[in-house]
Amino acid sequence: MSSYILTVTCPDQSGIIAAITNCIASGKGNILNLAQHTATDIGMFFCRIVFVAQEGFSEADFKKEFGKVGEHFSMKWHIFNRGIKKRVAILVSKTSHCLYELLLKHADGELDCEIPVIISNHPELAHIATSFHIPFFQIDTAKGKEEYEKDLEEILRQYNIELVILARYMQVLSPDFCSRWNNRVINIHHGFLPAFKGAKPYHQAWQKGVKIIGATGHFATADLDQGPIIFQDVIRVADTCSVEEFTRMGKDVERRVLYESVRRYLSHSIFFYSGRTFIIE
Amino acid sequence: MSSYILTVTCPDQSGIIAAITNCIASGKGNILNLAQHTATDIGMFFCRIVFVAQEGFSEADFKKEFGKVGEHFSMKWHIFNRGIKKRVAILVSKTSHCLYELLLKHADGELDCEIPVIISNHPELAHIATSFHIPFFQIDTAKGKEEYEKDLEEILRQYNIELVILARYMQVLSPDFCSRWNNRVINIHHGFLPAFKGAKPYHQAWQKGVKIIGATGHFATADLDQGPIIFQDVIRVADTCSVEEFTRMGKDVERRVLYESVRRYLSHSIFFYSGRTFIIE
Amino acid sequence: MSSYILTVTCPDQSGIIAAITNCIASGKGNILNLAQHTATDIGMFFCRIVFVAQEGFSEADFKKEFGKVGEHFSMKWHIFNRGIKKRVAILVSKTSHCLYELLLKHADGELDCEIPVIISNHPELAHIATSFHIPFFQIDTAKGKEEYEKDLEEILRQYNIELVILARYMQVLSPDFCSRWNNRVINIHHGFLPAFKGAKPYHQAWQKGVKIIGATGHFATADLDQGPIIFQDVIRVADTCSVEEFTRMGKDVERRVLYESVRRYLSHSIFFYSGRTFIIE
Amino acid sequence: MSSYILTVTCPDQSGIIAAITNCIASGKGNILNLAQHTATDIGMFFCRIVFVAQEGFSEADFKKEFGKVGEHFSMKWHIFNRGIKKRVAILVSKTSHCLYELLLKHADGELDCEIPVIISNHPELAHIATSFHIPFFQIDTAKGKEEYEKDLEEILRQYNIELVILARYMQVLSPDFCSRWNNRVINIHHGFLPAFKGAKPYHQAWQKGVKIIGATGHFATADLDQGPIIFQDVIRVADTCSVEEFTRMGKDVERRVLYESVRRYLSHSIFFYSGRTFIIE
Repeated sequence: MSSYILTVTCPDQSGIIAAITNCIASGKGNILNLAQHTATDIGMFFCRIVFVAQEGFSEADFKKEFGKVGEHFSMKWHIFNRGIKKRVAILVSKTSHCLYELLLKHADGELDCEIPVIISNHPELAHIATSFHIPFFQIDTAKGKEEYEKDLEEILRQYNIELVILARYMQVLSPDFCSRWNNRVINIHHGFLPAFKGAKPYHQAWQKGVKIIGATGHFATADLDQGPIIFQDVIRVADTCSVEEFTRMGKDVERRVLYESVRRYLSHSIFFYSGRTFIIE
Repeated sequence: MSSYILTVTCPDQSGIIAAITNCIASGKGNILNLAQHTATDIGMFFCRIVFVAQEGFSEADFKKEFGKVGEHFSMKWHIFNRGIKKRVAILVSKTSHCLYELLLKHADGELDCEIPVIISNHPELAHIATSFHIPFFQIDTAKGKEEYEKDLEEILRQYNIELVILARYMQVLSPDFCSRWNNRVINIHHGFLPAFKGAKPYHQAWQKGVKIIGATGHFATADLDQGPIIFQDVIRVADTCSVEEFTRMGKDVERRVLYESVRRYLSHSIFFYSGRTFIIE
Repeated sequence: MSSYILTVTCPDQSGIIAAITNCIASGKGNILNLAQHTATDIGMFFCRIVFVAQEGFSEADFKKEFGKVGEHFSMKWHIFNRGIKKRVAILVSKTSHCLYELLLKHADGELDCEIPVIISNHPELAHIATSFHIPFFQIDTAKGKEEYEKDLEEILRQYNIELVILARYMQVLSPDFCSRWNNRVINIHHGFLPAFKGAKPYHQAWQKGVKIIGATGHFATADLDQGPIIFQDVIRVADTCSVEEFTRMGKDVERRVLYESVRRYLSHSIFFYSGRTFIIE
Repeated sequence: MSSYILTVTCPDQSGIIAAITNCIASGKGNILNLAQHTATDIGMFFCRIVFVAQEGFSEADFKKEFGKVGEHFSMKWHIFNRGIKKRVAILVSKTSHCLYELLLKHADGELDCEIPVIISNHPELAHIATSFHIPFFQIDTAKGKEEYEKDLEEILRQYNIELVILARYMQVLSPDFCSRWNNRVINIHHGFLPAFKGAKPYHQAWQKGVKIIGATGHFATADLDQGPIIFQDVIRVADTCSVEEFTRMGKDVERRVLYESVRRYLSHSIFFYSGRTFIIE
């Protein structure tokens, strides 16, 4: 049987859950999991429902019926057929730990997507792509950002890519690119944002003498390292650690944070409101 | 307006959530929060719903109608009026950190209950009870367990106590007491159960050379330190720590774990099945 | 027997540890614990030694001899007799959880200092001071900062205070005060510095949508919330938490961070260099 | 210049550190790092020193001189030339995440050893060995434990192996093997020992309803899963997690714990006393 994920965002009022669950039940859907949250600080309702289609369910009919519910409650809503996998491109530079993490998790069945292409501005990691039997493209940044981003988007188009992951990709994307791929580019920053944005965050953290360092998975926006945050994790550091040790210890945090960010995206658990995310699992 | 918490446990099948939410909606309840979980390992459905009564809601009518739903799905269900506070007794011996934690959280409005009495087998902590204006009773364990537990239960009866908290109370309760107060006595054990049950868990942990120590909030049963677990927390310890330092560091874990366990009980988030708990928040 | 803590900071070179330990051994000190760190990023050596005086040890003679070693290696060094307790004042406003934490830890023998006075700009917490038998002074901020800080310092002088703890004291100290009490005023900020400095850090964190919140113990300086960091801790928050829940959950982090910061100060584990701390334990 | 690690274990008494550091200084060694701990619970002294040889240092002479110090204080001591790498064999079965972790960390320069051979009782992971250019041997367990362990030890001998890592190797080693390789076989157990030893620890943990799961790196001994513990880590689990999710989430803990255990071994930070380890870093 097909299974679906339905996500709903709307201003809070009474009767929303009953209306949603009734519509699913009368359309012959059986709810497996329902996670709901009302953010009282902003008066918004968020809901994520997993349901399976039973005998007599029609996706087209359901969309039509649910459309009425959605209109009544001023909902933003989406429905995803879980059988259709997202197509994801990974962008890298020279550092391999985040790329390996994604490929190994994918091989282990723990990333529910297809990874048809890996793209880099350097040749160093081509052998990893090859060993996982994934096409690898090198783009030429010497052409200038406008030109090389055209090449990049041409590859994304060719592979029907829906999500771009920056796995320690060391180039800033242009505002135009970010805007065209709004909320569809996930980046990993090796600092505990909003602190230590920009270059050399581990050096900044060491000089400030913080006692805990972290990494942040977020959507890339024109405003560098300031896009909506998806996941963060941290690690306690002793003052006997050098910047070099920060870098070594941070790698484990970075790869975990990037993986967890992508996993949340692929499970349709990320809601957007007022410039931030709400993760409902 | 009154608000209610409804908890439901039953074997999983399709249509449960819709049936529940419909019954609430038609009875004039408005759902504020719904948390649901299907434990696929055992085929059980757990659900906790917070709703507010609207114009026209009647608790008696709702119970009657919901009783039919409950029967249909073979549910265990309970409904709690949030305006009625649980009456809680705290039992202590000589150590104060867990008692202080509960009293300070309660004073801060973070424990939703009444604490009408504190009982001890020692006189040492009477002054704390006094400074929080709570009656303090000392029971005489020299009488023998049967006799002194009679006295204890007499006090509990006198104060209409519904939940007993053992806040580092250093006496083992009799199997009969545990049975009469089944799932209504919360204990804190200063070991990461199921390891290191019984006496001197920090000594056991030190001798074993574990690298992380913890504490466990659980229901007291006749089987010492083996009752259903409610909450656990841990702390990393260096091998340069002595048993004495384990004891010092552990205090913070103990008080946090006890508080979090009691908080989950009072919010009706604890479900029981197959000898363990399922916390649904 | 008397025991001592010796702290040493100097540019790194070879032979430092041997020179220090020889001087202690020949002066009839017996080392119990030695913790040493060379920060390779800045070429600095830090060392903290605990030793006990044996038959024949003289503090005056030791200082004289060690002075020569210190001069040879360009050391900053201090020696503390562990029998002499620091005198500490706690400043509060209306919130009690940090004050309680310090007083309860002190009562439990876990803060190695004297607390002869508590000072506030409000009357609310006077009863807590009283129940711990500590004099409580209320200062009048309506007089203006210059005047009221004069009153404050008069009380500190009267009680021979060496360290000031701001336990959620909601007044900004003047640059002059900070300068006179340089590295002797410990503050707790309820944000994970350097992010979210200033007012309402939990609101800032919620609006930014961070997934982990924290608190920071630091020395107060004229530059608000930017003084050297002593200790930090964090807690993971779900996006289903409100600002109010951040505030509730944050309290436990705040009190722990403040206590751990003060404990490190009292154990002479804090070294300063280049605007940050190095904690050597 | 050559650098060395010196480790010392002995009953505590006064003057040990001075005697050690004097011997190093007079032998023309320059101490870079000294970590020392006196375990007051058992009256034992542990010390790990990193030093570099200066003009005039002779390893043979130093050993001779230090031997006298060692005899005087009844020390167990070892000295390691950091230029000589340990030779390590990895044993696997069918699961790849721990193997990948070790190989990727090694490739990144974060495991200070040589890995000349990988051995398995199954063929599945041969391709990984190949892609890292490491010889892969498959042993035949159908021969019976005695026979096949002979084959195994023949391979270990052939490659001059000094340390064996069981990276989710699903065969119990014989008591004889464990005894011959005492404290030279590191195993990863996917339970928070001493709880949940033996088979299916995640199932055991789920059935018990614990709220935190973990993994343990330890030395293999004849007593299954009871050898000295090197490193442990944990992860909080919700009661909404299935056993399958425990398994998925546990993988990250397992690989981290195994890597951290091996790293501590290779840095000579592990001391043994009274059946447990003391890690001094």
